Amino acid sequence: MAKEVTSRSENYSQWYNDLALKADLAEQSAVRGCMVIKPYGYAIWEKMQSVLDGMFKKTGVQNAYFPLFIPKSFFSREAEHVAGFAKECAVVTHHRLMNDPDGKGVIVDPEAKLEEELIVRPTSETIIWSTYKNWIKSWRDLPLLCNQWCNVVRWEMRTRLFLRTAEFLWQEGHTAHATAAEAEAKANEMVQVYARFAREVMALPVIVGHKSPNERFAGALDTLTIEAMMQDGKALQAGTSHFLGQNFAKSFDVTFTNKEGKEEYVWATSWGVSTRLMGALIMAHGDDNGLVLPPALAPIQVVMVPIFKTPEEMAAVLEKMAQVKAGLEALGHSVKIDDRDTLRPGFKFAEWELKGVPVRLAMGARDLAAGTVEVARRDTLEKETMALEGIEAHISALLGEIQQNIYNKALAFREANVEKCDSWDEFKEKIQSGKFLLCHWDGTAETEQAIKDETKATIRCIPVDSYVCEEEGRDIYSGKPSHQRVVFAISY
Amino acid sequence: MAKEVTSRSENYSQWYNDLALKADLAEQSAVRGCMVIKPYGYAIWEKMQSVLDGMFKKTGVQNAYFPLFIPKSFFSREAEHVAGFAKECAVVTHHRLMNDPDGKGVIVDPEAKLEEELIVRPTSETIIWSTYKNWIKSWRDLPLLCNQWCNVVRWEMRTRLFLRTAEFLWQEGHTAHATAAEAEAKANEMVQVYARFAREVMALPVIVGHKSPNERFAGALDTLTIEAMMQDGKALQAGTSHFLGQNFAKSFDVTFTNKEGKEEYVWATSWGVSTRLMGALIMAHGDDNGLVLPPALAPIQVVMVPIFKTPEEMAAVLEKMAQVKAGLEALGHSVKIDDRDTLRPGFKFAEWELKGVPVRLAMGARDLAAGTVEVARRDTLEKETMALEGIEAHISALLGEIQQNIYNKALAFREANVEKCDSWDEFKEKIQSGKFLLCHWDGTAETEQAIKDETKATIRCIPVDSYVCEEEGRDIYSGKPSHQRVVFAISY
Repeated sequence: MAKEVTSRSENYSQWYNDLALKADLAEQSAVRGCMVIKPYGYAIWEKMQSVLDGMFKKTGVQNAYFPLFIPKSFFSREAEHVAGFAKECAVVTHHRLMNDPDGKGVIVDPEAKLEEELIVRPTSETIIWSTYKNWIKSWRDLPLLCNQWCNVVRWEMRTRLFLRTAEFLWQEGHTAHATAAEAEAKANEMVQVYARFAREVMALPVIVGHKSPNERFAGALDTLTIEAMMQDGKALQAGTSHFLGQNFAKSFDVTFTNKEGKEEYVWATSWGVSTRLMGALIMAHGDDNGLVLPPALAPIQVVMVPIFKTPEEMAAVLEKMAQVKAGLEALGHSVKIDDRDTLRPGFKFAEWELKGVPVRLAMGARDLAAGTVEVARRDTLEKETMALEGIEAHISALLGEIQQNIYNKALAFREANVEKCDSWDEFKEKIQSGKFLLCHWDGTAETEQAIKDETKATIRCIPVDSYVCEEEGRDIYSGKPSHQRVVFAISY
Repeated sequence: MAKEVTSRSENYSQWYNDLALKADLAEQSAVRGCMVIKPYGYAIWEKMQSVLDGMFKKTGVQNAYFPLFIPKSFFSREAEHVAGFAKECAVVTHHRLMNDPDGKGVIVDPEAKLEEELIVRPTSETIIWSTYKNWIKSWRDLPLLCNQWCNVVRWEMRTRLFLRTAEFLWQEGHTAHATAAEAEAKANEMVQVYARFAREVMALPVIVGHKSPNERFAGALDTLTIEAMMQDGKALQAGTSHFLGQNFAKSFDVTFTNKEGKEEYVWATSWGVSTRLMGALIMAHGDDNGLVLPPALAPIQVVMVPIFKTPEEMAAVLEKMAQVKAGLEALGHSVKIDDRDTLRPGFKFAEWELKGVPVRLAMGARDLAAGTVEVARRDTLEKETMALEGIEAHISALLGEIQQNIYNKALAFREANVEKCDSWDEFKEKIQSGKFLLCHWDGTAETEQAIKDETKATIRCIPVDSYVCEEEGRDIYSGKPSHQRVVFAISY
């Protein structure tokens, strides 16, 4: 049998870890809190990168690369930012090792102390805005739209594969604009890019909205977010886009001459998604047999398993499979023939189910004679025997159907677990049972904090495209007047 | 006028810096020795990555990601490796900052000292082989072929944009094999991938060969290299591929059960190219007007500059240009119409020459009436007036011709500057004038070192595909017997 996976009902958290590890996505490394992303997991991340990168470039964004290290003093420049990011981070203090005079390995050379410590970037606003100062002089230099794909480090105490790791991979976009309106429009455009990517590519129905002031990015005037519901009913913040106002421009003295010849501070946005999306993918769609990958992100979309008793049968089946593979590849699909002769078909079936391959074809000598093939869908686990004739077009259509079905299933799950709630007693009970609750909120940080302290629930967002409910009401906790409902949930 | 570029004859080193900076490829950052790769430079690097990544994958290599940090103790495991890499590196000693009690910014929290210091990877053999230990059990797990695209840090004292920076971007492949022969074949396959990439994509004629023992990678049994000649006659090592024997397998105790059921240590290779290739590209092909980009790596292959006196003329020319652009894009070419109305055509011409765009089209109202267009080649600086009819196919062919011509030009330059040399007096003179010298070498490290001490020249490689000269002779320096000539040069 293939590797055993803990069931979701038995232990959801262990189920998640099992999937990440046993489907060969990632593992813990020898370095505390840092993961190794294994080839199968990295192939999914590469697909995410490739689609997102294309979407960014269509909006006029260009890629660039800024240093890994940030001088310590840069973190003191933007007051809120330092409070949010400069605390738990990796600090480089020396630049040399030397042989231990005692002859036992190597030690840090005390002579090689840096004049100013360097911080491994937890996010790059400060180093990028210190650079933009030299790039921006006039309105002609704006907008400036840069993105970078890179690694960042935040010294997390409790880590979980993909969801919270000390080092993670991400992209961070940093744009500079002549007006507040243009920057706000860009922040909005990018959160919508993320929402479209989540929905259409990850098959992840997300709720788009504004963060409450408490939950904003350190240094932002507004943070937009996409929030997804996992199968335990918890929320996962899957991407954010920030309107930074003129905060960083002021901290790093970035001004431009406008068309009227006057000096003004530049307006900024930043936006990012990370390898955390891999965690969302696992938890949103996986089942007790393993991963369920949306075809748009599956490194292998179709796997073929030959069934045979003799080498002659094997050769004949593999020959036919090679034809089907070529046909599917011509249609743009990625296909693998699992021709390992040391493993039984049942073992292979379980392994590819664990790895979430959307479609599995099995074919034996009898199928070959009858001109048929067995087609198994990963999303529904249904099997069907079909004619080989025209199978390529059928599979191609089926992949599209699976992509849509995975989305629909996740959407139906969410719809069934989002509720309006107007009673505090009900709130306390339902929020623990994995619901997203649409509640009135009085708009104060105090109430939000009190609710969090009592229940661990936070305002995930003030929604802008689904679950928008602007109506008069009373705050779920304080009873004070409120003008709209917001989304509460317990989050990852 | 566009930005002034220092001429090569006046100051070669300054010319190089001017091109890197003024063509908007990169600049120094606020962090000592770390560069910012600007969007135009990064677009070239992305093209390099994309082509190389496809070539790697065709050989069966998969991408993965390993941690940025390496525990200090790992560097003590492989004795030669520690000597080569553990010296000048960035050392993380703390994981937290705190507000300065004196109220002046932030300081490192002395309480947050790491138990074991972490080194920012200068290369990843150690962390990867500590991981491979868990991945490899049986011959069925081999070969294991991984690559990662990432940043690395080596604390260089003297840095130059792209050529030598504290942080740089690269790919590092790390493969594991059941036999020495298979690993050696892989190391050879990958250096040939690099050579093909250099020649066909970068238009860079490289010499492939073995490094002498002195110049090998720390921990390797054999290092293969591609060596390119720059326009000052100096050599630039553009990529290396190492046969590591069982050194890392032994240091990290990585064994496998072979088909006969016996435990054996695994055989290894590693191979890498970096953003240093950007430096090679600049120095191999650039001229006193700026960059000369091979079409295969040019982010913009064709730029169009409209010439007009009235808004009506401009509109008519731009409309025609849009048609030609669409036609060229349909053929797979990247095209930019420079419709900025605040700059004169002459300024634009100089700017796009500086940026190395292979083909420039200029068109005015008179051209429109006559059905013609002016076509300028960046490589030869020739201009020609051509019929608009069929211009797309002509440009497409021209781009191929330019790619070939840039290669031929670099090859002719190299051929003119590689010489056999059998006299030590001649050697000392010619090596300083920028020649590659094919000389007899007695095969000892002592002679190699003595030559280096006297002249700064090193053995760039013992060539395997061009300039191979196996014949009996006498060492250029020691006069001892020698069986072949090797390539000496002064290098970057």
